[in-house]
Amino acid sequence: RYNGKLLGGLLADGFDEAACASRYSSFLYRKISLHKPSSYLISRLRSYEDLHKRCGPNTQSYNKALEQLKSGKKIMGLTDCNYIVWISFSGLGNRILSLASTFLYALLTNRVLLVDQGKDMADLFCEPFPDKSWLLPRDFPLIDQFDSLNQNSPNCHGNMLKNNVINSSAMSKPSYIYLHLVHDYGDHDKLFFCDGDQSFLENVPWLIMKTDNYYVPSLFLIPSFETELRNLFPEKATVFHHLGRYLFHPSNHVWGLITRYYRTYLAKADERIGIQIRIFDSRRGPFKHVMDQILSCTLKEKLLPAVDMQDSVVNPSENAKLKAVLVTSLLSGYSEDLRNMYWEHPTMTGEVVGVYQPSHEEFQQTEKQMHNRKAWAEMYLLSLTDVLVTSAWSTFGYVAQGLGGLRPWILYKTENDTVPDPPCHRAMSMEPCFHAPPFYDCKAKKGIDTGILVPHVRHCEDISWGLKVVDDHDDL
Amino acid sequence: RYNGKLLGGLLADGFDEAACASRYSSFLYRKISLHKPSSYLISRLRSYEDLHKRCGPNTQSYNKALEQLKSGKKIMGLTDCNYIVWISFSGLGNRILSLASTFLYALLTNRVLLVDQGKDMADLFCEPFPDKSWLLPRDFPLIDQFDSLNQNSPNCHGNMLKNNVINSSAMSKPSYIYLHLVHDYGDHDKLFFCDGDQSFLENVPWLIMKTDNYYVPSLFLIPSFETELRNLFPEKATVFHHLGRYLFHPSNHVWGLITRYYRTYLAKADERIGIQIRIFDSRRGPFKHVMDQILSCTLKEKLLPAVDMQDSVVNPSENAKLKAVLVTSLLSGYSEDLRNMYWEHPTMTGEVVGVYQPSHEEFQQTEKQMHNRKAWAEMYLLSLTDVLVTSAWSTFGYVAQGLGGLRPWILYKTENDTVPDPPCHRAMSMEPCFHAPPFYDCKAKKGIDTGILVPHVRHCEDISWGLKVVDDHDDL
Ligand SMILES: Nc1nc2c(ncn2[C@@H]2O[C@H](COP(=O)(O)OP(=O)(O)O)[C@@H](O)[C@H]2O)c(=O)[nH]1
Ligand SMILES: Nc1nc2c(ncn2[C@@H]2O[C@H](COP(=O)(O)OP(=O)(O)O)[C@@H](O)[C@H]2O)c(=O)[nH]1
Repeated sequence: RYNGKLLGGLLADGFDEAACASRYSSFLYRKISLHKPSSYLISRLRSYEDLHKRCGPNTQSYNKALEQLKSGKKIMGLTDCNYIVWISFSGLGNRILSLASTFLYALLTNRVLLVDQGKDMADLFCEPFPDKSWLLPRDFPLIDQFDSLNQNSPNCHGNMLKNNVINSSAMSKPSYIYLHLVHDYGDHDKLFFCDGDQSFLENVPWLIMKTDNYYVPSLFLIPSFETELRNLFPEKATVFHHLGRYLFHPSNHVWGLITRYYRTYLAKADERIGIQIRIFDSRRGPFKHVMDQILSCTLKEKLLPAVDMQDSVVNPSENAKLKAVLVTSLLSGYSEDLRNMYWEHPTMTGEVVGVYQPSHEEFQQTEKQMHNRKAWAEMYLLSLTDVLVTSAWSTFGYVAQGLGGLRPWILYKTENDTVPDPPCHRAMSMEPCFHAPPFYDCKAKKGIDTGILVPHVRHCEDISWGLKVVDDHDDL
Repeated sequence: RYNGKLLGGLLADGFDEAACASRYSSFLYRKISLHKPSSYLISRLRSYEDLHKRCGPNTQSYNKALEQLKSGKKIMGLTDCNYIVWISFSGLGNRILSLASTFLYALLTNRVLLVDQGKDMADLFCEPFPDKSWLLPRDFPLIDQFDSLNQNSPNCHGNMLKNNVINSSAMSKPSYIYLHLVHDYGDHDKLFFCDGDQSFLENVPWLIMKTDNYYVPSLFLIPSFETELRNLFPEKATVFHHLGRYLFHPSNHVWGLITRYYRTYLAKADERIGIQIRIFDSRRGPFKHVMDQILSCTLKEKLLPAVDMQDSVVNPSENAKLKAVLVTSLLSGYSEDLRNMYWEHPTMTGEVVGVYQPSHEEFQQTEKQMHNRKAWAEMYLLSLTDVLVTSAWSTFGYVAQGLGGLRPWILYKTENDTVPDPPCHRAMSMEPCFHAPPFYDCKAKKGIDTGILVPHVRHCEDISWGLKVVDDHDDL
């Protein structure tokens, strides 16, 4: 029998419900996912939870590993527990995706994931693992260096490779290695995605990673992870869907924002349509060509009804469907135009269409508490819609589609201020796109198109050089 | 048996429904009025309709009266039909109130009401009378002079009195008299409200009136109208309520705006609260003291629930009431603040509160078609709420309260940018306020406080020198 509250076994039982209301009540706001987690994934999550409990902050093993790190000594023997520390970096969408990737990497390498709290990780998310926190204690030795860690740091994996300071003998391994997987990373950093380097990293007790990418697709191209990934995700394009729902439970503050908004504005609609508008343009906006693109896409794909500019239909029919459009955008202009259109004119179908936009923050303000709470609430609200339209390139939209289990219509990036034709395209899968994948054949030691190696890792719809996981049977 | 569709007999049967969808379906959007029209009012309306049919535009009687007007001849005998022409003047709220007053005056004096179309009367309203239009034909002889008619026009009643050109013999009566009842009118114009002058006007076939006021309260102080008014309105404070519902049927365009908005945003709420914000201040706004006043009023009067700034309640309870707040204002700031407050914080009661504002036109644009359609739609939507809060001095709010049969809470006008204490006060009646009444005792020929002469005409809550009709039993 499917356990809705635990998302079919994805979630562990026994958490304190009051401390994190979202964990066990999210299912009340969603349809049951069409994608069931595999029993192998479930068992691996449970064993990860045991590992985390045994190795998490302030356990004996943690303290021991910390001692070793502090002493700076090279490693003499195997440690009890190995760790991967995720540095809080970049916009919230990027963080959620990179953290999910890093959790998968932790699963694949039997590491314990610890999360740098940054300014607001604890304010935004509940603890995902029972008993022990996933938050890196604030007295972690290297914590003050997180901001300055970069490609040129002495312990940076790529840098060490470049300078040939890596020796394959375990004797000379440093007590920690910094992994730089930020979008601007170099060829040496990208060797992280080679089997050889993975085996080198294997016994380094502390990995510290900074990344703003969803690098899961390239993990699928590392041969040593192949079997495990196939077992974890028999349905391949569900990685973020499952791991995202497993990891990211909105904190009570954010859950309040989500549930109040949902109940006030969305719950009573017959259908909910999400439109995520994120325009990467140095000019201010709103732009007419973007509005035209949204209208053209939603009309062409029949996501929203056409309006009758002649106003010939007077009364909405008695049992007309009510559609709620949830718009997220930094600007209010697009949703105002849409709202006005459906107010000023009747639809051809007799449906009535309400348009809602929770916030319009005008510009990205990564460091403001309420700003990020709202950003998170809005990604989550988008994930509760029935039909989703997203903007190309945006991780904000990827989070929504993944959590929602939605294969969105992607609004192509516009060029020269004109509406692309077609204006949008249905995504192949609900998986996020890896924006900065390596193009390297580790064995042949030469460049290669990594988007055509296997059927389940393809180039993205919205970024031609990006990679995303798709299902073998996905509608391509 | 109460006939809902005809508003208890207020409306005549037999109109073409498609030409004016609002007329016979407004009852679907309203609770049944607590105030039934008197059978005498109903019979007078039916006989007015007969009169209008007999005397309306392009009838024989109309053409005859027109001939006389054109010839400019002094009147020799009684004419078939006498007319009062209402000039379209001022903001939409003012127009609706002055037109209702003028219709009542027409009823009291057995005149036929004809309505100057101005820029948009025909675009905004349906025809209220069967068979014959209430619109003054565009070829009406004096129509080009309407704009320039003023206190000093030769045929202006007050001016004639001032210059002593009025002679009580019927022989010397002009073929038309212009009545200037605009807020800036003078003492001689105000003699309109004296019995003597009414009997002088009696046989003038054409009265042309320009007014921006709801002058009904002063009609109640004219002795010769007393009996008729008592019979028409046994419940005195229902004059605008009944006449407004009788006269003002939104045109199909406007009805589309009303019904679509209502069904999309308001219909599913458990309770609807209207807040009409109209600030007469030369500075731009929004103002913090106004926002504070609104919050203070709605909280103190328990119209809206308080929020818990500590966020202690996490989940809205399952069967929490949904309240919809309809805000109208030229600016978007007030409703945004309110919407954010109820999004960011839970209510103490567990209720969820949605906040809606159809338009924010930024400034008054009396001449734009869509602007006035929206203004009319918004007044009407406010009238469909269950609880109404209005701004002092605004005829926009008076229209809403009168049509809705709502006794509003009036937000007092602020002074020195501080919140008044108390911030608002429940209105004595749903009647509009006459902003510029005369203070003259026609018999004693001296100044007098007209707000204390009879129990049912009192000074207004929001304008100390204004007059409004109240019921003898009204809660004072
Ligand atoms: N509330 C809100 N914030 C947004 C929106 N779009 C962008 N932002 C802000 O800008 C940041 C964008 O960074 P990110 O989440 O990584 O998404 P991306 O830049 O679209 O890939 C978000 O975290 C928000 O802080 C939006 O629609 N709503
Ligand atoms: N749509 C809209 N228009 C408004 C609002 N407040 C004022 N206006 C405009 O300003 C005019 C105000 O004039 P009037 O209706 O006579 O009301 P008053 O000035 O408040 O007595 C309206 O007719 C509208 O054109 C509002 O809340 N919504």
